[in-house]
Amino acid sequence: MDVFIEPIGRLINEFSKLPGVGKKTAQRYAYKIIGMSDEEARVFAQSVLDCKRKVKYCKVCGNFTEEEVCDICKRRDKSVVCVVKEPKDVVALEKLHEFKGVYHVLHGVISPMDGIGPNEIRIKELLSRVNEGGVQEVIMATNPDVEGEATAMYIAKLLKPLGVNVTRIAHGIPIGSELEYTDEVTLSRALSERKQI
Amino acid sequence: MDVFIEPIGRLINEFSKLPGVGKKTAQRYAYKIIGMSDEEARVFAQSVLDCKRKVKYCKVCGNFTEEEVCDICKRRDKSVVCVVKEPKDVVALEKLHEFKGVYHVLHGVISPMDGIGPNEIRIKELLSRVNEGGVQEVIMATNPDVEGEATAMYIAKLLKPLGVNVTRIAHGIPIGSELEYTDEVTLSRALSERKQI
Repeated sequence: MDVFIEPIGRLINEFSKLPGVGKKTAQRYAYKIIGMSDEEARVFAQSVLDCKRKVKYCKVCGNFTEEEVCDICKRRDKSVVCVVKEPKDVVALEKLHEFKGVYHVLHGVISPMDGIGPNEIRIKELLSRVNEGGVQEVIMATNPDVEGEATAMYIAKLLKPLGVNVTRIAHGIPIGSELEYTDEVTLSRALSERKQI
Repeated sequence: MDVFIEPIGRLINEFSKLPGVGKKTAQRYAYKIIGMSDEEARVFAQSVLDCKRKVKYCKVCGNFTEEEVCDICKRRDKSVVCVVKEPKDVVALEKLHEFKGVYHVLHGVISPMDGIGPNEIRIKELLSRVNEGGVQEVIMATNPDVEGEATAMYIAKLLKPLGVNVTRIAHGIPIGSELEYTDEVTLSRALSERKQI
């Protein structure tokens, strides 16, 4: 990287740490920063610091928040808890403006291959929430992959003795896709979980 | 964007200002920042500020530098000047480790459609350099597009009366490509500029 002077090389290196950003893209980003006004660059850098400093995890659900407890936990129906892997899954669901319950972010899924056991993710916290009472349904909304399924099943087993209704988001053929191009596992699931119309 | 809390929404907005970055990518970048340690985020933000603050333009060639005059202008053969559109073109050429001369960065090309005339780019500065003497050859290395060609021709006309040798980088078929897929203009140029072997 000796073709770049030090501050540019260092910024390119920093931008390269972002997901999916190679040297070439990082270089474009760095040039964009150099082309900004001093004020714009200051605001950019400050946003990075603010985001890191102000954003905490909600002590109830584990989602991002600026306060102790997030807005969703404060205001919404606590009888339905939707369990997701990561905060970005909350964003995906919130964009629907349909779900009226609260969330529980696991911050990971059980994955023995990666050394992540049940104690590494926020399962204990979920059990405490359910034990405190008031929860009628827990929706398992982890991803439909091996780890997501296993985690959903594991948690369901722990929750059922507590007398709470545990559900799983439906799997099947995505709307707008074609049977021909649907993978076999999904198609098989869609067939076995067919519904009366 | 109300699904994001304010500091995250603001950082996503800032990242969206980078070239080619949409909301989804900006969101991934923001989450990466949140996942960093405090120190990593501080270093990231500081790199942005340092790059903006420390990087200036070389008063001779117009390339990025931390000092008054860049390292290339200080150390290299001043008898050959390579004229490019932007600092990133210097990077592309420097990566070859072949060119031993100095550069002149125009910071743009003549483009009447965009309201950029000869006075908006660093042509005057180039003429002064040549007038000061010692320059034997000026290589026009602007891009091979309409504006780049026109700018090269315009500058060549101004330089020739000063008794300096003006050259243009070769156009032709890129190494490793195929005749079949070469565009007509390039192919026509490659044919008319054929060389004895």
